[in-house]
Amino acid sequence: MPNVVFVVGLGPGDPRFLTAQAQSALTQAEVLCGYTVYLDLVRPYFPDKLYYSTGMTKEIDRCRWALETARSGRAVALVCSGDAGVYGMASPLLELAEHFPDVTVEVVPGLTAALSGGAVLGAPLAHDFCVLSLSDRLTPWEVIERRLAAAAMGDFCIALYNPSSKGRPDYLARAVRILLANGKAPGTVCGIVRNIGREGQESRVLTLAALETTPVDMFTTVFVGNAQTRQLSGRMVTPRGYRA
Amino acid sequence: MPNVVFVVGLGPGDPRFLTAQAQSALTQAEVLCGYTVYLDLVRPYFPDKLYYSTGMTKEIDRCRWALETARSGRAVALVCSGDAGVYGMASPLLELAEHFPDVTVEVVPGLTAALSGGAVLGAPLAHDFCVLSLSDRLTPWEVIERRLAAAAMGDFCIALYNPSSKGRPDYLARAVRILLANGKAPGTVCGIVRNIGREGQESRVLTLAALETTPVDMFTTVFVGNAQTRQLSGRMVTPRGYRA
Repeated sequence: MPNVVFVVGLGPGDPRFLTAQAQSALTQAEVLCGYTVYLDLVRPYFPDKLYYSTGMTKEIDRCRWALETARSGRAVALVCSGDAGVYGMASPLLELAEHFPDVTVEVVPGLTAALSGGAVLGAPLAHDFCVLSLSDRLTPWEVIERRLAAAAMGDFCIALYNPSSKGRPDYLARAVRILLANGKAPGTVCGIVRNIGREGQESRVLTLAALETTPVDMFTTVFVGNAQTRQLSGRMVTPRGYRA
Repeated sequence: MPNVVFVVGLGPGDPRFLTAQAQSALTQAEVLCGYTVYLDLVRPYFPDKLYYSTGMTKEIDRCRWALETARSGRAVALVCSGDAGVYGMASPLLELAEHFPDVTVEVVPGLTAALSGGAVLGAPLAHDFCVLSLSDRLTPWEVIERRLAAAAMGDFCIALYNPSSKGRPDYLARAVRILLANGKAPGTVCGIVRNIGREGQESRVLTLAALETTPVDMFTTVFVGNAQTRQLSGRMVTPRGYRA
């Protein structure tokens, strides 16, 4: 199958979260390409492939390499953690693919952390929800602030991605203060999940007030409930109905 | 494996969207239980199971039946389309499971339509997004209106579930007017996907203004872009970065 780039969402990484479609795309591809850490997750299960890995910030180089390799007749799988679309490589790949009209791009969805982490906690996103990244690497902080305020005003459940990193240890605390200032109650039920589906997975249910002073790292996904969310036997459960 | 209820997200229905974990849960279960239409999707692949199906509005009966059956020693899989958590059965099951302390509930995530439909369109949800249901069966319309306004004010990408049904043919048009009144431009790039991953799948990219007068049915998921979303070679692509 020449001239194709599959952009494949791996989910959390462990092969039990792969869909049959993702498994098939990885099998069909001759070359697997992606960020080093994600490639290392699949390498043990596909030992006979060619591998091309790049650093985290080299996304455009990676897309160009994938498209050029596909054009030369080798099927490529560009792998992403989570979903291929959600903060993933499908978007820059499709942008660049405008210059490669002879290459087909096939987007293969995967379990984003909102779903895989949600399942660990219980059912935190059973009603209307937002997914929001706190990383300001590609987005101005003012846009992030405005979205946090809007999510709170709508009383959405929220999944927060990239809640922290070395350069910005206080971003989650800042986000919590914006949510509190825009209508989320301090007692709102929240949850955190670390290392979803990997060794050392841990999770915890806590209040929004407690979240403000809880240290988290870049391997953590944070969940904020709506006004109806409850803690039940240690799980975070949002009702499907919304009673006023 | 007695005394367990797996609540399993099937994704769009076709087995190629099942994760290995979901496949394993369905294999381990002795009884498969769920809404008739979803059970019919998996029946051909698991012919040797016991099946218990109920109508669409009998969710609580189904949960009670699943928990009672698990308590009697038979492993049960309660199946949902899409994800187990997102508008799914994990939430009512975990609520009712408070009365069945001897039964274990295991939530098995699956591809919700925002991800599976997003992959069909390209990468519509590559930046911060909301998932919002237009069904007012369990949620007052005022809450839905308030969330639509908040989603527009935050310039989120949006996936709209349940955009229409027989009893409310005009809900999508009403939703579009709320989005327009709260800051979404008429030219915002949007997409619709019908019968995701099933026979007769169809998709289309159009503007928000055009969406207002486009008829949709209950098998359709609607995507609304943010201010940066573009149409590229017939696909809907939201950039990962957000330029002001």
